[in-house]
This record gives sequence, C-alpha cells and structure tokens, in this order.
Amino acid sequence: MSLSTASATSSGTSAKRVFNFNAGPSALPLSVLERIREELLDWRGSGMSVMEMSHRSPEFEGINAAAEAGLRKHLAIPDDYAVIFLQGGGSTQFTLAPMNLCVPGKPVDLFHTGTWTAKALTELKKGILHKVAATSEPVKFTRIPRKDEISLSPDPSYVHICTNNTIEGTQYHALPASAAPLVADMSSDIASRPVDVGKFGLIFAGAQKNLGPSGVTLVIVRKDLAERADKNLPTTLQYRTHIKEKSLYHTPPTFAIYILGLVTEWIAGEGGIAGIQKRNEAKAKLLYDTIEASGGFYTCPVEKSSRSLMNVVFRVGGSAAAPGDEALEKEFGKQAAAANLVGTPGHRSVGGMRISLYNAVGLDAVEALTHFMREFHRARG
Amino acid sequence: MSLSTASATSSGTSAKRVFNFNAGPSALPLSVLERIREELLDWRGSGMSVMEMSHRSPEFEGINAAAEAGLRKHLAIPDDYAVIFLQGGGSTQFTLAPMNLCVPGKPVDLFHTGTWTAKALTELKKGILHKVAATSEPVKFTRIPRKDEISLSPDPSYVHICTNNTIEGTQYHALPASAAPLVADMSSDIASRPVDVGKFGLIFAGAQKNLGPSGVTLVIVRKDLAERADKNLPTTLQYRTHIKEKSLYHTPPTFAIYILGLVTEWIAGEGGIAGIQKRNEAKAKLLYDTIEASGGFYTCPVEKSSRSLMNVVFRVGGSAAAPGDEALEKEFGKQAAAANLVGTPGHRSVGGMRISLYNAVGLDAVEALTHFMREFHRARG
Repeated sequence: MSLSTASATSSGTSAKRVFNFNAGPSALPLSVLERIREELLDWRGSGMSVMEMSHRSPEFEGINAAAEAGLRKHLAIPDDYAVIFLQGGGSTQFTLAPMNLCVPGKPVDLFHTGTWTAKALTELKKGILHKVAATSEPVKFTRIPRKDEISLSPDPSYVHICTNNTIEGTQYHALPASAAPLVADMSSDIASRPVDVGKFGLIFAGAQKNLGPSGVTLVIVRKDLAERADKNLPTTLQYRTHIKEKSLYHTPPTFAIYILGLVTEWIAGEGGIAGIQKRNEAKAKLLYDTIEASGGFYTCPVEKSSRSLMNVVFRVGGSAAAPGDEALEKEFGKQAAAANLVGTPGHRSVGGMRISLYNAVGLDAVEALTHFMREFHRARG
Repeated sequence: MSLSTASATSSGTSAKRVFNFNAGPSALPLSVLERIREELLDWRGSGMSVMEMSHRSPEFEGINAAAEAGLRKHLAIPDDYAVIFLQGGGSTQFTLAPMNLCVPGKPVDLFHTGTWTAKALTELKKGILHKVAATSEPVKFTRIPRKDEISLSPDPSYVHICTNNTIEGTQYHALPASAAPLVADMSSDIASRPVDVGKFGLIFAGAQKNLGPSGVTLVIVRKDLAERADKNLPTTLQYRTHIKEKSLYHTPPTFAIYILGLVTEWIAGEGGIAGIQKRNEAKAKLLYDTIEASGGFYTCPVEKSSRSLMNVVFRVGGSAAAPGDEALEKEFGKQAAAANLVGTPGHRSVGGMRISLYNAVGLDAVEALTHFMREFHRARG
C-alpha cells in the first residue's frame, strides 16, 4: 500500500482525490459522485438536472420514492414506521422530537454521553419536563453509561440516546432496555451496521455522514407516536405533515434526496448493510490495532467496550504529565494533510486526533493512514 | 428561431436540454451546471467535492462568505442587515417570522394575495395576534390590493407581504407604505429586479427559483429586529443564532450554498441585477404581447397593473361560458412538452397555463414558446 493519492480513474478522468477522514460532511462514494456528474445536465433523458425538476413531477416523485424504498430495504424498516426527509439537521430534531412526542406530565429521559446530548439537553431545559437518566460525564464521556448507572423515570414520554458520539469517539454496542420509546440520534452511525428499527420510536440522522450530502435529515418514526403531536403546532414542524405528504408538503431538498437514493444503490452493491458492517469492522480494527501496537505513542482514551467504529479518537506522544503532546499532534495533522490524508485533527473542543471511518471511507484509506502513522512514529522512535 | 432543443454545447457535450418553465425548482444557468460538473470530484485542487468538505474548513468558509458577499453586492444589502442561509423553505419562515419578530400585544398585519399568504395566515391563526390588513380575495386574487383597500393596524409588529404570487401570476410593482417593518416573502422574485432592502425588516426566499437549488433559504434581516426574539426559543429557530454563527451554528446545506454562490457570479456576468431586470422585462413583454395579440385565443386573467414578470398565467381557448377550454389546455401542455417546452401547465389549484420566467430562463426559451403558441393557435384558427 502506497501513500499515493486516490484518483478518480474509473471514468478516465484525472481528478485529484484525497483520503478523506472528515467528521461530516464527509467522503462520498466515488461511484456516486461520478454518477451525479454524468447525470448533472440531463437526468436520464429528461433534458434537465434533478435540481431543475419540479418536486411534483413524476420524475422527482420516482426519485423520492426510490430513496425511501432503498432505505426501507437496507434498514429493514417495518411498515408501521414512516420514512421522511426533512431539513434542519439533527440539531433541529432536538426541538422537534420533544415538540411532537412529549406526553403532558411524562418527562423525557436523556442519556448524556457528550457534546450532542448536551445540545439536546439545552433544548429540553427550555421548559420541557426531563431527567438525565444516565451520564458518563464523571468519566469524561470515555464510555457509554453502564447498566447500573441508569435510573429511568417510571413512565417517561421517551428515552433519548445518541448512538454514536462523534467528538468523544464512543458508540453503543448494545441498546439500553426501555419500556418507553427509544429516540435515537443516529446521525453518525446510521446505515453503518444492522439495527432493529422496531426497538425505536424515532430515529433521526443528518445525511452528511453515511447517507449523502448535508441538507437533508432522515427521520424514521413510528406512525402512532407522530400522532401524539398537537395539531396546532406549526405545520412544517409536525412529523405528521411530512408523513401525510410523503416529504412533499413543501419543496424538499430535491438534489440531496436524489443523492441519498444513489447512496442506497451503492450500499446494495457493497452487499447491503451486512457487507458495509463487515468492512467497517475491518477498517476500525486496523486502526485500533495500530494504536494499540504503538507501545503508548498513540493512545485511545475510550474504554474498549465503548469504542466507536465510526470515529476513532486518539492522542499522540502523551506522557505521564499529559494525555497528548499538542505540538506533535499539530505536526501529525499537518504532515498527514501533506500526504493527502485529510481531516485527522480532533474536534477543537477536545484536541488530539479524530479519524472518521464512515461508510464511504475505503479500507485503502485506512491502510494509507496506518502506514503513515507507523512512519510518523518511526521517525520519532 | 427554431423549436430545436437547447443543447449543452458550450462544453462540447451532447446533453439534451429542454426549455424549462417550471415554477420551482426550476431552470439553472447552463454555465453554472457546467461549473458544478467540472468541480464535482475535485473542487479547485482540494481533492474532494464541495459536498465532502467540512463546513468548518477554510475552503467552505470561503465558499460561504463568497455566497454572502455576492448577494450583498447584487442586492445592495446595507450593513445593518444580516444575510443568513437557513433550511426549511419559505413555509418554515411563516412560523419563524412571527416567532422571532412579534412584539407582545402588537399584531401582524398581512396582505392576503393568494396561496402563499393563505399559508402564512394559517400559521398566524395558531395563536398569533394578527389582522388581514388588505386582501384581493374578492376579485379572486387577480390583482394586488389597491391603496384604498388597505387598513393597517395602528402599531403592528410588522406587515407581511408576498411580493410575487407564483400561482396567481401577480406581483407588486410598488411597495405599500408602512411605518412598521415590512416582511416580504420574496421566494419567487428575489434578485429579479432591484429592491431597496432598507425598506424591509425581513426578506426571505427559498433559493429554488432565482438563486439555486432547493434546500437553502435566504434570510435577510435587519439585525436589531432579530433581537426582538425570546432567547428561550429553540436554538435553531432563532435568527440570532445563525446571525452570530454566520450560518454555521450547525451543518448548513453546503452544496446548495456553493451553487447559490455560483449563481451570484453568473448574475455578475449578466450585468448584475440591472441587466437581469432588463432581460426579464423583455421576456415578459414578449409573452404578454403574444397573449394580447391572439385576439382572445389566449387570455390573461390578471389586471395589467399587477402582472407578474416571473410567472405568467393564461387560459387557452376560453369562451363566454368559461374562462378556458380545459381539454385544449391539456392538449397545449402535452404538445408543448413534446416540443421540449417543459412545465407549462398551471398550478393544479387554478388550472390554465403558467409560464415561469425566472432569471435563468433565456429569451430564446420565450421565443421558442411564443412561436409554439402562435403555431398552436394557427392550427385551430
């Protein structure tokens, strides 16, 4: 495996392509980008770009339906769940979920596992009855809460979790038991592994990590729960509006939905979610093994049982006095970028390095990265 | 002028391109689409698509800033106004505008001019103090309300208008006088002619007609008015959040913003808004003249003083008994489509024909259409 740049050669072009470890928006499958390019001026003989089509045209209705069908197939979404395409990202769902799903007098139970649940909590604090039912804040979010740390309300409206924490590098590998509906922010690990949708009341995910570009938010919601909402809520903020109109109540982000549909086609070609999962496990194993084999030059702060397969965080050149050598980490990011390994620095709030291994990141990218890591270490050994 | 299909020949490709009169999403400038295609796999040597970039990267921050700067320049937006890129379309602004700009006890005054103000009114009726300060409903929205039909509240929070009514084919050609801030839904005529932004408190527009693809909503708001909002409102629903973070509070629809920026570059090449306006006037004149010259075969129901330069509505083959011959109108739409003139049928709620003449629709498209209209008439003369 060499460090040479990935090139978009399958179509004969000579476009420069880097290895992209961005946390989102992030890498898209090359074949999807090539398809977009091919169809950009004339979608399948229509004489126009998908961007130029009426969202009420049969052509776009077909694109919209295909994207939904692709998700239903790959994620095995039961019929009593609606699949809708919204706008506003996961952050807006921190408001829409309680607005639509809260039952008067019944609190929202939240599992606090990092930056994204902190944001959800900020919105709950604006007058919504809630309880932090578990938190790993005392251990600096280096793991998912343990069973004996969970204290649910007797009858909550729902239980909010974030299945994968991009900044902290943690991920649930088993779902918490809950009689109340589970509401999951799955923005950063949707479609990365099989999930039993029937165990959730609501799943939401910004598309910009595993499903497509930013600008479209996937919402999977049990239809009966969407009926909890007050009909007097603003029309575009009610899930039921979009369920009833199949995401076409108003103009949806048509181009992003089209790309999401292409990504579901790509998933099929990769062997479905099972194939994707296998590849994701291999990618993460290679990277974590490289960290472990470094004899402490690279260290992952996350407990093994909670390590994320999507976002691998680690520190470089730490010592007894400090978890990482910030100057060395800066140098790592700089040299990696020079070697066309883009997006390795950790989130500004925590420092260190963060490698996002979303579905579209190939094993070749991780091979290039781990080769670089060994070389970077060797030069300082 | 022949009826031959526009072709994307400037780049040597042979993509089929139709004449696109869709009401939105709608035609984009061919040169913009070609630029998107060219940069799709590798944006200016970055080795990635704009879709794959972190929204916090210097590259995307530059794209975001360029889109804002392009709008500020062309629309002559004063410094005391913020320019932000949101999601959720104009329909979500029907909620966000009152949520952010209402002053307790002071009503929203609304000018009711058709389908889009009806939707705004529906949201106001959900517990917001308001008044219909003018309406052209008694004349079936065939014109903008006259001065003597306006009855403003003594001290409204703001006055809501829709500057161009896509379905009814009407447009304001003079602004109503108001001491209170004017809030304008400018979705379908933004950037089509010069406007004095200083006369408005808030302008919002879905991008999918004159500015780019669907999925990004332009909001221009006087900064002091954005401070009226309760700080306890949901974070993503406050204008001030996005003003403070320059549209980067959360992941914005990055690709749509990039395209919007390209469209502002295209506007510059067309001679700015003054050049665009001149072309729009010529396009609309040609079409209205063709209708008027048909001796009643084509009829426009809109009063001359209120006719839209963006959406031209007309009926075909009407008689004393009915405004239009529905069978003939259906045939018109069908034959037009066969001649690569796409998107001519009127909105399903009103029937007839509707021709959208947004900025990216060329005079050649209108020439092809009016030629077709004369031929269609002649064959039945």
